[in-house]
Amino acid sequence: MINPLYLPELREMLAEQDTAGLGEFCTALHPGRTAEFMEGLDAAETWAVLQHTDAEKRVEIFGFLEPEKQVQVIETAERGQIAELIDEMPADDRVDLLELVDPAVVSELMALVPQEDRRDIIRLRSYPEQTAGAVMTTEVAKVPETISVGEAMAELTRQASALETIYYVYIVDDQQHLRGVVSCRDLVSKLGESQTPVGDIMERDLVSVDVADDQEMIAEKVARYDLAVIPVVDHEYRLLGIITHDDVIDVVREEATEDAHRLSAVEPLKTGYLETPWVTLAWNRGLWLFVLFIGALLTAFALQRYESDLEAISWLVLFLPLVISSGGNSGSQSATLIITALTVGDVRLVDWWRIVRRELLMGLSLGSFLAVIGYLAAMLLHGHPVEALVIPITILLVVMGGMLLGAVLPLIFSRLGWDPALMSNPLVAMIVDIVGILVYMQVALAVLAGG
Amino acid sequence: MINPLYLPELREMLAEQDTAGLGEFCTALHPGRTAEFMEGLDAAETWAVLQHTDAEKRVEIFGFLEPEKQVQVIETAERGQIAELIDEMPADDRVDLLELVDPAVVSELMALVPQEDRRDIIRLRSYPEQTAGAVMTTEVAKVPETISVGEAMAELTRQASALETIYYVYIVDDQQHLRGVVSCRDLVSKLGESQTPVGDIMERDLVSVDVADDQEMIAEKVARYDLAVIPVVDHEYRLLGIITHDDVIDVVREEATEDAHRLSAVEPLKTGYLETPWVTLAWNRGLWLFVLFIGALLTAFALQRYESDLEAISWLVLFLPLVISSGGNSGSQSATLIITALTVGDVRLVDWWRIVRRELLMGLSLGSFLAVIGYLAAMLLHGHPVEALVIPITILLVVMGGMLLGAVLPLIFSRLGWDPALMSNPLVAMIVDIVGILVYMQVALAVLAGG
Repeated sequence: MINPLYLPELREMLAEQDTAGLGEFCTALHPGRTAEFMEGLDAAETWAVLQHTDAEKRVEIFGFLEPEKQVQVIETAERGQIAELIDEMPADDRVDLLELVDPAVVSELMALVPQEDRRDIIRLRSYPEQTAGAVMTTEVAKVPETISVGEAMAELTRQASALETIYYVYIVDDQQHLRGVVSCRDLVSKLGESQTPVGDIMERDLVSVDVADDQEMIAEKVARYDLAVIPVVDHEYRLLGIITHDDVIDVVREEATEDAHRLSAVEPLKTGYLETPWVTLAWNRGLWLFVLFIGALLTAFALQRYESDLEAISWLVLFLPLVISSGGNSGSQSATLIITALTVGDVRLVDWWRIVRRELLMGLSLGSFLAVIGYLAAMLLHGHPVEALVIPITILLVVMGGMLLGAVLPLIFSRLGWDPALMSNPLVAMIVDIVGILVYMQVALAVLAGG
Repeated sequence: MINPLYLPELREMLAEQDTAGLGEFCTALHPGRTAEFMEGLDAAETWAVLQHTDAEKRVEIFGFLEPEKQVQVIETAERGQIAELIDEMPADDRVDLLELVDPAVVSELMALVPQEDRRDIIRLRSYPEQTAGAVMTTEVAKVPETISVGEAMAELTRQASALETIYYVYIVDDQQHLRGVVSCRDLVSKLGESQTPVGDIMERDLVSVDVADDQEMIAEKVARYDLAVIPVVDHEYRLLGIITHDDVIDVVREEATEDAHRLSAVEPLKTGYLETPWVTLAWNRGLWLFVLFIGALLTAFALQRYESDLEAISWLVLFLPLVISSGGNSGSQSATLIITALTVGDVRLVDWWRIVRRELLMGLSLGSFLAVIGYLAAMLLHGHPVEALVIPITILLVVMGGMLLGAVLPLIFSRLGWDPALMSNPLVAMIVDIVGILVYMQVALAVLAGG
């Protein structure tokens, strides 16, 4: 959303070097809104505006700019200033951003940031994409087990301004092993008993993720245990970092988009639609289109077996797309319902019999309903009341079969330990198509032989 | 996950009235894990175990039990004890739970909870489902503008144990109008200057939602502004409640599931697959299957126009399902990519020309690739090298058309202010099917007339 109303005023303030006005502009609004108002400015103007506020606010507003704009600013502004900005940025965000910046600029900048930050950036960049390590931040409130609630609060006051979040304070031993957690809420509510050791009030059984875990695990654990923040540990249970609520929400959204892409037979994109390089997009789509196309070729060979029958009874061809799409649509409905239910934990593998029963009953009712309409259409296009029975019988069978296959195939994938979303709707539809053609032809031959 | 290993031990402890052991069991683990270990117990046993810990822990563990088990406990345990439990539960969770409980039991319980809670429950129940009002909790940390940081901290210490979260403290005037917000982090980091009025350090520009807003708005704002908690206000900007991180994540997941259902032409379910009443499920699926079926009937009428041509050139029928599914699969890929990109804000309407260009180019390349394979198959099944050209030409046109329509139809829906996800994959496929058949027949007649 570009807010063109503000742009002339902003540019005027810049031209007039209106320090007071620009300072006010940077602090009056939520940093996310300030960033939106600045969308129409170019990188140089953006950076000039941000000079009129303190380092903390500057980083906050900068974090809400469009990624493209952030990259432009980093690549064009004075290196020393940018190094300071990077120093102040949340540890996880700056790593993600530097991935997008020209490597030559990155190495110039890395020479300018303090050694500690440089090491941190290098370590975080070493974790593979979409793992907990790549999503976490290393800025975490830590205290030893032995200190009191009062001391912990004082320590927190000291650390707070440098940290992104202090909702939880983690208790570690001197080798950084994670021992427990105290929420800021518990700490605050115990301030009356400030001599109590934090070890006495901490929770010892923590939900954590391993640094190498896939981000899907994060989304799952956070949703199951209602966490705002999840700690990240190594294989020896040493605290490496935390994943905060905003990144959790991003992960949940990314995983949802990934599932939606899989469901429609697109290999999930790691970046936005317009940012994804053309070749990657073509590959991620072409791969599945090719698989589905080869599958669909089987329909041609299946039909070839019946070529002479179709020539003799040509009206059957009219209903071929209808029959196929009825099965495909029923199948994708079932597949999506079961896949999404498996993802959020609404159904489990042990429910398989309840699912099969439900889908068969559903296929029977909805299939019968569509069969009636199909019979009317068949009578309209081909008047023979007995021969027209081919259509409703096939529709009923195909809808029931589609729903059954659509539900069972993801369950089988899940049972085999594969992602059920791989059993995408088009793949289910492809299988149902082939089965549908065979059913159609067999029903036709049986009815017409009898009729 | 039922943990059968623990169950015999738990039952033994219950039989032996092992207060110490059961107390330890309730406190040693994360409440979510404790609840998982108890999954195999019946409602009476569950409630008996929970008697061995304090009210706070009891509520926490209870909140992680399966909803069905929660309802059983509420309906069967002693009313007075349950009224106390309800009194202690988070204001939003208890309202959701009571919706599932037998109304006769609810009215008995309502007579037993304190008047203040009763009013709160009645008010929260009055908000329509899936609005901010229905998702929020009324338990929120509030202080007046005039008090100092030190006083605010003391007030927070007093309120903390009764609140679900104190990540943000809201500043309100004496008519409850929302004036600003201070994060617990800011408060803690300013403890050194405890005389400062909170009005001096609060953020005045808040991101909030209206109590009547759809929950989709919550998910969108939270993701855009990286919030852990979002305040809910009425039309006069009075603070009514807050929506906390755990509910936000639930909302994000619910919205993602809703979109996935829409994409596969299922009217979104409001409850889990197995909990949804059969009639509702049949309606939510049948509605769209019916619409798609009527659409697919048009393919039969379209084909009827060409019945005599198909009789004369019967090998064309073999490739009918292949041609149709190529268009449908390409179309659903594009539709899903554009719909998910619109949802997360990766593309906007102003990008329409870039999208169209990308999809046309994609259709040209992937379509050509599939066309080559199609030509080989056509040569295999129908040896005539010129006549077989019908297949690759049609595939190229249908894939390009499918991608174009799949991308443009959701954009048009979005432009009209409708949910682009209504342009579901099966709907796109249906439209592409009809177009595909017409293209196929026209290409065939043109090539074969020339050939």
